[in-house]
Amino acid sequence: MDLPRTTDLGFARLDPDRAARTGTPEVVYAAGKTPEQTVTCLAGLLADAPLAWATRVDEATRAAVLDRWPGAVVDEEARCVAVGELPRPQGRVLVLTAGTSDGPVAAEVAFTLAACGVGCRRVDDVGVAGVHRVLAVAPDLAAADAVVVVAGMDGALPSVVAGLTDRLVVAVPTSVGYGAAFEGLAALLTMLTACAPGVLVVNIDNGFGAGVAAARIVRSAQR
Amino acid sequence: MDLPRTTDLGFARLDPDRAARTGTPEVVYAAGKTPEQTVTCLAGLLADAPLAWATRVDEATRAAVLDRWPGAVVDEEARCVAVGELPRPQGRVLVLTAGTSDGPVAAEVAFTLAACGVGCRRVDDVGVAGVHRVLAVAPDLAAADAVVVVAGMDGALPSVVAGLTDRLVVAVPTSVGYGAAFEGLAALLTMLTACAPGVLVVNIDNGFGAGVAAARIVRSAQR
Amino acid sequence: MDLPRTTDLGFARLDPDRAARTGTPEVVYAAGKTPEQTVTCLAGLLADAPLAWATRVDEATRAAVLDRWPGAVVDEEARCVAVGELPRPQGRVLVLTAGTSDGPVAAEVAFTLAACGVGCRRVDDVGVAGVHRVLAVAPDLAAADAVVVVAGMDGALPSVVAGLTDRLVVAVPTSVGYGAAFEGLAALLTMLTACAPGVLVVNIDNGFGAGVAAARIVRSAQR
Amino acid sequence: MDLPRTTDLGFARLDPDRAARTGTPEVVYAAGKTPEQTVTCLAGLLADAPLAWATRVDEATRAAVLDRWPGAVVDEEARCVAVGELPRPQGRVLVLTAGTSDGPVAAEVAFTLAACGVGCRRVDDVGVAGVHRVLAVAPDLAAADAVVVVAGMDGALPSVVAGLTDRLVVAVPTSVGYGAAFEGLAALLTMLTACAPGVLVVNIDNGFGAGVAAARIVRSAQR
Amino acid sequence: MDLPRTTDLGFARLDPDRAARTGTPEVVYAAGKTPEQTVTCLAGLLADAPLAWATRVDEATRAAVLDRWPGAVVDEEARCVAVGELPRPQGRVLVLTAGTSDGPVAAEVAFTLAACGVGCRRVDDVGVAGVHRVLAVAPDLAAADAVVVVAGMDGALPSVVAGLTDRLVVAVPTSVGYGAAFEGLAALLTMLTACAPGVLVVNIDNGFGAGVAAARIVRSAQR
Amino acid sequence: MDLPRTTDLGFARLDPDRAARTGTPEVVYAAGKTPEQTVTCLAGLLADAPLAWATRVDEATRAAVLDRWPGAVVDEEARCVAVGELPRPQGRVLVLTAGTSDGPVAAEVAFTLAACGVGCRRVDDVGVAGVHRVLAVAPDLAAADAVVVVAGMDGALPSVVAGLTDRLVVAVPTSVGYGAAFEGLAALLTMLTACAPGVLVVNIDNGFGAGVAAARIVRSAQR
Amino acid sequence: MDLPRTTDLGFARLDPDRAARTGTPEVVYAAGKTPEQTVTCLAGLLADAPLAWATRVDEATRAAVLDRWPGAVVDEEARCVAVGELPRPQGRVLVLTAGTSDGPVAAEVAFTLAACGVGCRRVDDVGVAGVHRVLAVAPDLAAADAVVVVAGMDGALPSVVAGLTDRLVVAVPTSVGYGAAFEGLAALLTMLTACAPGVLVVNIDNGFGAGVAAARIVRSAQR
Amino acid sequence: MDLPRTTDLGFARLDPDRAARTGTPEVVYAAGKTPEQTVTCLAGLLADAPLAWATRVDEATRAAVLDRWPGAVVDEEARCVAVGELPRPQGRVLVLTAGTSDGPVAAEVAFTLAACGVGCRRVDDVGVAGVHRVLAVAPDLAAADAVVVVAGMDGALPSVVAGLTDRLVVAVPTSVGYGAAFEGLAALLTMLTACAPGVLVVNIDNGFGAGVAAARIVRSAQR
Repeated sequence: MDLPRTTDLGFARLDPDRAARTGTPEVVYAAGKTPEQTVTCLAGLLADAPLAWATRVDEATRAAVLDRWPGAVVDEEARCVAVGELPRPQGRVLVLTAGTSDGPVAAEVAFTLAACGVGCRRVDDVGVAGVHRVLAVAPDLAAADAVVVVAGMDGALPSVVAGLTDRLVVAVPTSVGYGAAFEGLAALLTMLTACAPGVLVVNIDNGFGAGVAAARIVRSAQR
Repeated sequence: MDLPRTTDLGFARLDPDRAARTGTPEVVYAAGKTPEQTVTCLAGLLADAPLAWATRVDEATRAAVLDRWPGAVVDEEARCVAVGELPRPQGRVLVLTAGTSDGPVAAEVAFTLAACGVGCRRVDDVGVAGVHRVLAVAPDLAAADAVVVVAGMDGALPSVVAGLTDRLVVAVPTSVGYGAAFEGLAALLTMLTACAPGVLVVNIDNGFGAGVAAARIVRSAQR
Repeated sequence: MDLPRTTDLGFARLDPDRAARTGTPEVVYAAGKTPEQTVTCLAGLLADAPLAWATRVDEATRAAVLDRWPGAVVDEEARCVAVGELPRPQGRVLVLTAGTSDGPVAAEVAFTLAACGVGCRRVDDVGVAGVHRVLAVAPDLAAADAVVVVAGMDGALPSVVAGLTDRLVVAVPTSVGYGAAFEGLAALLTMLTACAPGVLVVNIDNGFGAGVAAARIVRSAQR
Repeated sequence: MDLPRTTDLGFARLDPDRAARTGTPEVVYAAGKTPEQTVTCLAGLLADAPLAWATRVDEATRAAVLDRWPGAVVDEEARCVAVGELPRPQGRVLVLTAGTSDGPVAAEVAFTLAACGVGCRRVDDVGVAGVHRVLAVAPDLAAADAVVVVAGMDGALPSVVAGLTDRLVVAVPTSVGYGAAFEGLAALLTMLTACAPGVLVVNIDNGFGAGVAAARIVRSAQR
Repeated sequence: MDLPRTTDLGFARLDPDRAARTGTPEVVYAAGKTPEQTVTCLAGLLADAPLAWATRVDEATRAAVLDRWPGAVVDEEARCVAVGELPRPQGRVLVLTAGTSDGPVAAEVAFTLAACGVGCRRVDDVGVAGVHRVLAVAPDLAAADAVVVVAGMDGALPSVVAGLTDRLVVAVPTSVGYGAAFEGLAALLTMLTACAPGVLVVNIDNGFGAGVAAARIVRSAQR
Repeated sequence: MDLPRTTDLGFARLDPDRAARTGTPEVVYAAGKTPEQTVTCLAGLLADAPLAWATRVDEATRAAVLDRWPGAVVDEEARCVAVGELPRPQGRVLVLTAGTSDGPVAAEVAFTLAACGVGCRRVDDVGVAGVHRVLAVAPDLAAADAVVVVAGMDGALPSVVAGLTDRLVVAVPTSVGYGAAFEGLAALLTMLTACAPGVLVVNIDNGFGAGVAAARIVRSAQR
Repeated sequence: MDLPRTTDLGFARLDPDRAARTGTPEVVYAAGKTPEQTVTCLAGLLADAPLAWATRVDEATRAAVLDRWPGAVVDEEARCVAVGELPRPQGRVLVLTAGTSDGPVAAEVAFTLAACGVGCRRVDDVGVAGVHRVLAVAPDLAAADAVVVVAGMDGALPSVVAGLTDRLVVAVPTSVGYGAAFEGLAALLTMLTACAPGVLVVNIDNGFGAGVAAARIVRSAQR
Repeated sequence: MDLPRTTDLGFARLDPDRAARTGTPEVVYAAGKTPEQTVTCLAGLLADAPLAWATRVDEATRAAVLDRWPGAVVDEEARCVAVGELPRPQGRVLVLTAGTSDGPVAAEVAFTLAACGVGCRRVDDVGVAGVHRVLAVAPDLAAADAVVVVAGMDGALPSVVAGLTDRLVVAVPTSVGYGAAFEGLAALLTMLTACAPGVLVVNIDNGFGAGVAAARIVRSAQR
């Protein structure tokens, strides 16, 4: 068996064949990296690919990226940057949020979908305290290839949505809330114990993971 | 200040004036008591009141109670017994369960309401995975003085119900579920972080507490 | 079935019929929203109602609200703002705190009651370490329609109060304390396991939820 | 809006249109139900569908089902029963387990897939302690529409698998292990924080949920 | 420095000088030991002391002890046995329980005090739901050298007691309760965060530790 | 029964008879109070007592106190202030720390003892990693009326000390440490499960509570 | 790269080259396996090795093993069985327990060492409540190649031992204890935060893992 | 028995014989110490040893050390300083990280090894999402005396590494990650439940402890 290649940067060992193996290239997780390290990783990835991107980007790193690549795509709400040309979007993922405060995580989902070449429609603030707002998105559900639901506090939205559609529901708990929300733990447990099947869960605030997963579903439908 | 009376049974000190102070007499929590202790407590309470009752009653205690008072009211599902005459019910509390497995806790709510002299209508299995089942109880909500919602697993039902009614919603998390339900913790956290206000929460599986609270609301409406 | 209306602001979808359905209008949770978003939400709600208010308001948002509506009602301790005319208060809720440090949460309860048109009497610092301070509020208990108890650290006050009154006790654990108080977890568990029935619990530091619930009880008594 | 139908059994309210809405019929969760209740639910569901099934079935319920429907499909390892004719399988899901002790959960996945009309290939005991066993399933990954990975203890297998394939990986933590495995919590957290994207997680021991989700992915690919 | 002696039994290494060093001899913790091991340990300790005792004794061990020493002192409620002559009691410790179900832990406290040669008065069921029952023990508090408070569920009793007395309050949380009592965790946290100083806490259900500590206080008063 | 007096400050209700009831006056917990509130409380307490003090005092409050009472006793390490004359110390408490970083908590113990009129000897940094340092304090143990042990990280010191002395050991877990120290939880659990009896535990970082308790032991010895 | 071999048993995939890669053969974890499965695994492993063994063996599995291999080595305390010839022991590991109740876990360590061909000396019940018992094992420490310390409850023993020796200390927390021992969590956290370096930790009750690790240390010393 | 010496600095009691007893001198844990305290400790230790070092050093302390000893060895990434001459390295420890963000903890391992006189080879970013990167370090594993694996998030790397080598694997969980990583808890639990034996675990982010342990293994091999 031949092992895939590795690009050795010293402080990091890039995996240039990951897109070939998994459909998604290696993406730079900028938290805990210096701006220089993130820029170097992006440059290394661009040696083998037309597009490279990073998540959890703070202001200093954003500036360093723009300094190196003035045309980089920057999304402040999502805290993401991309260098290179975004692919033409195919398919459609519906991204719902339970409240306005869940917006940054939904933005990370949307950015990831765009970088993966998948179309996205986002509807914000459809929390179950006014359940008619959920019922009103039925046409959007029917038009989607997959659904991503982003919710903090009680995290109850995926349970209701999954009972209304045959699309796979990717649930993203957020750290929105206080007290017994325990930084997203309440929403996480709610989603894991959702009384409706068809709900799959990612880590708290993990918009990136939800976006990659939704992109895989869309691609699966196109295979 | 004169202190209220105490009935000293040695292993227990009864509080015969509690009904006068709080509207509800002392009720025997049979868990951790021997059948003899429960019977003795009930007898002691009956010395000052027309009705006495016990919760968390196991089979041996139920037998001991029936042996002493053959006419006792027994509810096996609720694990409760009452000795004396139940008061004529006034007012109406709607008791909803999210699933059939939540039945025993709902039965404890209903038994408690009956012992408190409050009317009860129970509708089972209106989980949010089929949210139309929740919408269908709208007439029952409008006819109720208060609502008790009993739910395990994701515990999402109170969030939806509280968005549909101006009645106070007493939420009872149950230990129904497995894994990340963590014996009712998931439902408890969901209910505490419910995105709709008007939800108040009791301990996991605490049908008794929910019943007493709902009775207080009804009485408050009648004052 | 006709679905209720929704006011679509893009980043938020307001629920203008919520007051009609639940007795309380939608209230803006300002945490996680920009000052502009909170102002826009308040303006949107005022299109359908004589009063709109927001909780968890930081200094920047307070300034933005006052800039738009110079006559807004601001409560710095409660971190709340209201725009419009407060209703004339009816009924009476007794708000007790266990200690001075619980003050901001009690202020949120009081602000919420005022916005709901419910009267409020607040007595601070009646912790059980001097239990005579609790006994001394007996006349206040007798004069109230409902009681809200706000307590951090050991959270023991609701257990004692509920044994002295037939009013419903809404218990609010606070994050006051250190070490094993675990940011309010100790008080929350104490209140959930209160040995006296008639105690209902809301989320840690959730003065808003307690206020809305107490208002529902008062309105229930007036129905 | 017309609400979907409900079949009212008193202790349960069946949702006969769920298959039309979500692609999967309501399935009976037998834990916490009496054998009679489970049989009655199955009978109620069969009134509207050619196949009904139940999970978490104990021995007494299994016997009651076989007594009523002698030709029922029974899987003791999976603790599932089905009544009616299983659909012809389409597509292929690869089900991997990290160890032999994860077998019952994998069996529930496989049973669910069969009831959903989806094909399944199962390879057991490919734990990462001998990572060559994982590499050896590469041809199976390439032939699958989706992958379900079942693992207890350290729950590390999905991280490795997701780095080898572009298929969506549904990860099922199991309660296998002792001590710091904390009844599946360790594996759950590992899977939620998997360093490879493309991993989606269900509740601990929730083979049913994983099976339904995998079936949705396969159907999505066939749409 | 000379090291103290050790009695080597192979499976155990007794510490015969512990009474000289710490005022309390080594006591056998029978949980996890075979009946034979407990009997052998007791015999080994009796070689150097007039009295030896064991806690957490199950039925088989109790029988084995009585078989070897027919005159052994046995307390079934406390699950303790003692061999030898109990010392004449000196001083007085007040032992309070919040409820009848806390009895076995209080019995372990009382047994330990007796074995330590300390007098004990026990008053059961003085829970704060009827706070007058607590006020009524004021004379007992004044007559005691130290106070032990045993309470499960909300664990609120020590906070109230410590505000009424200048005696040291040793608080014992018990595992009595359900749901959010979390096997004694709620009571433990309540006691650790008691708003009144002068409360010291031992492990959940640890009547033995509370008894030894109270005995040390009494002896300290007699030094 | 006559209720004790209360001094009503509006935001606080002082308990001037607490010293008479419990041997220790009410002490101001300054965390969560404004500097003005703390000063007002101290002034209120001084109306009935020769000494008043406050804990958890930040820099602004310290300044406000010194502004009002230039002769106040200030301990920056302990974060405490006292106004009035400290009593002449009687008795002796030994205060041990496991490490230098536990110093501020030990300082709070020492300050509290001084304010209670109890003598104190403090020996720092006697951690069990060099157990001879513990053995070396044997003479100090013999000379003390009680022992306070302050330890973070593994919290193992009280277990060792309690095996060497017949004095009561008051154990104070501290939040010193990182990772699995979980802000003092590790040390707290260690101390609660200490294999040597005679260890009593207070809240994490609660030097005040440990000081008050130790003072009660000393007074008990003097009664 | 050639992948190592796999022996496919259907329900298990054995890893016959593991001994060559890691120095220890695959060992059968019998918990969660049927007796037949354990026997089949042992037989499969014996096809490639002179010795095979299993841990966590219950009575039925022990009987099945003895039925197939009457000369199997059985250790009931350790719950282990071995088939084949044990290697001649080399080197020496010192195994200490804090209490008699930790015996079964220490027995698993000792069995594992024997199966790995490593010598073992076991000294039981050297808990820190009599710290002289720890000091007394100094000669054993000096004679050992590595030390394994097995302790429940407070788990304080490794901290003390590691301060007395330059040998690596493998710490095994056990589930011995009650209440705040939380099934071994207290001991686990204590060991992870040990104030002395040189302590490495395995899972709660994991005598097998400790034994394998100690054997690697001994072998490392012999390389 | 003669007790080892102690150097009394008042706020600290140094243990100058620790190197003789345990092979590693006392090392200054600078967190929670003032710069002056750290400098004084280092000076005290240098009175008895050619080298002294400190960990968890912040910028102010680093400056104070350099001010006193301009030639001190400073590692900003590792947050460590050493004063004196580093010993000549012997043996070789392989240090692996799962990701670039784990770098500072790996740096603390490497610094500790250097101060202990042990050689180190570090390979960064070999996470299991590209498992070929792990397989590629096989030659490094074969050349090492011991292996330290540093990983956050899912913490899965040690399980894979331990299945590839007969060296002892010291696993260091890091606090890298978010949400359900829970500040390193997820990685900690993963490592404790690693399905491959031969993995020993230290506290979260405890590079120092891992370094000392690895040095003991190397020395053990040289004894």
